[in-house]
Amino acid sequence: MPDQFTTTAQPMPGHVDFVGAGPGDPDLLTLKAMRAFEAADIVMHDRLISQDILDVACQTATLVDVGKAGFGPSWKQEDIDALLVEYALTGARVVRLKSGDPTVFGRLDEEIDAVEAAGISWAIVPGITAASAAVASIGQSLTRRGRNSSVRFLTGHDMQGFADHDWVALAQGGEVAAIYMGKKSARFVQGRLIMHGADRATPITLVENASRPNQRILATSLENLPVDLAAAELNGPALTFYGLAPRDAAQALTEFKKELA
Amino acid sequence: MPDQFTTTAQPMPGHVDFVGAGPGDPDLLTLKAMRAFEAADIVMHDRLISQDILDVACQTATLVDVGKAGFGPSWKQEDIDALLVEYALTGARVVRLKSGDPTVFGRLDEEIDAVEAAGISWAIVPGITAASAAVASIGQSLTRRGRNSSVRFLTGHDMQGFADHDWVALAQGGEVAAIYMGKKSARFVQGRLIMHGADRATPITLVENASRPNQRILATSLENLPVDLAAAELNGPALTFYGLAPRDAAQALTEFKKELA
Ligand SMILES: C[S@@+](CC[C@H](N)C(=O)[O-])C[C@H]1O[C@@H](n2cnc3c(N)ncnc32)[C@H](O)[C@@H]1O
Ligand SMILES: C[S@@+](CC[C@H](N)C(=O)[O-])C[C@H]1O[C@@H](n2cnc3c(N)ncnc32)[C@H](O)[C@@H]1O
Repeated sequence: MPDQFTTTAQPMPGHVDFVGAGPGDPDLLTLKAMRAFEAADIVMHDRLISQDILDVACQTATLVDVGKAGFGPSWKQEDIDALLVEYALTGARVVRLKSGDPTVFGRLDEEIDAVEAAGISWAIVPGITAASAAVASIGQSLTRRGRNSSVRFLTGHDMQGFADHDWVALAQGGEVAAIYMGKKSARFVQGRLIMHGADRATPITLVENASRPNQRILATSLENLPVDLAAAELNGPALTFYGLAPRDAAQALTEFKKELA
Repeated sequence: MPDQFTTTAQPMPGHVDFVGAGPGDPDLLTLKAMRAFEAADIVMHDRLISQDILDVACQTATLVDVGKAGFGPSWKQEDIDALLVEYALTGARVVRLKSGDPTVFGRLDEEIDAVEAAGISWAIVPGITAASAAVASIGQSLTRRGRNSSVRFLTGHDMQGFADHDWVALAQGGEVAAIYMGKKSARFVQGRLIMHGADRATPITLVENASRPNQRILATSLENLPVDLAAAELNGPALTFYGLAPRDAAQALTEFKKELA
């Protein structure tokens, strides 16, 4: 509405940007995310966002933590939705910061529904999803001509508990999948895949804290996944690749062959 | 090797960064991509990279086009590999710019193999893949609790022609797939899916030029895909979503129901 018609003192409705923070390295923020931080009054985040990213965001906006408060319980999704709406209705420009890409296992729709129901405008700013950063760190591609012409992003567990997937198809050779939230479900996934005939030697790679200074890579096989995973004690977020080994292994092999030659 | 031991005038080996350019909006470049441009002597790109991105990259580095030269044929992959190595062996710092995320249908491995065989160091800088940008533009998520706990990225065609996929699984309700290079194969994909029992009313959305000023969205159904696609005359790169409709449609429906209530 043009300014001259604004007669009552109704507050301007705010706006919510659902912004992808990427996997944790602040250099993997997009320019668009940076601009969203600069325009924001408030940045709402949870505990999946790295401290390095929060250090960037807090330079221009007020941070609101809707993750674990101290040792207390996590916020409920409804409470996050309500708070988002509450802030935006004061006229604030809010960034709702999501790890990785907001559209990948981000429970984005629930928040958009709430914001939209309140008549607040919103937009999505895509981010680098964990799979992209993790695969880059092992020097591999998510797809490769002659190997796999498709890749799947799966979650290890969903609302009902462990998530069910098309194990038959995945168990065939040459499939590649990026499993999000796959640590707790590792034994379940292993069992399902082997039951459906997957090769026990299929390479499995876990990338913990992808793109962060404390990144760790665990290269194992479907057979050894549960044992190696338990031994590695990965405490950070981790992406599990089914069907991919780190490229280093291939490289090391080349080096070794060179030495022999 | 420390400087004092360098006695011969051997040129310093160069370095290659395989950088994701994102879908075309320069604001969707990462800070890391920007830094790679700044550090680069040469940026090698093909015709999938938008002019807006090239305008950014050329500010600090020399551009080398390995896409279509005028009306001539495309470069062969082997020639690109060879040129990449040739530049890096002069000691140059080279950015090999790939659209979207370099690890998604990017023929990255072939180039890494060549660079590695020449003993040149390299790194991958992830980027926003077309699926992330395209889904954001239709206000949807790639995954959604209670709808799909996995998403697939497929290509419409591979080395052998049209790519074969697990049509049986895809034809089941509730599946979501992002189909890259899916325009020419639209009729093939439609045929396969319907043959395996997919609902003809399954929503299909194409996003052409995602994130670019000339972005267009085509919302159709599996049944009407070939006809609507032909009518729309999409000439730019397009991402096809199987199983997703733009959120606007849902919103309009809600509005409509509200009016009725
Ligand atoms: C709730 S999902 C959110 C995913 C996020 N939207 C994305 O696109 O990356 C959280 C899961 O993402 C993965 N993840 C997130 N950040 C990661 C990182 N830096 N390294 C490895 N995995 C990560 C882990 O599997 C984690 O359990
Ligand atoms: C050779 S693949 C490269 C994909 C790229 N590496 C990525 O991650 O987006 C080219 C295909 O990507 C998709 N694509 C790339 N840029 C796009 C854009 N801006 N909008 C829609 N689709 C795009 C199209 O399906 C196109 O045929």
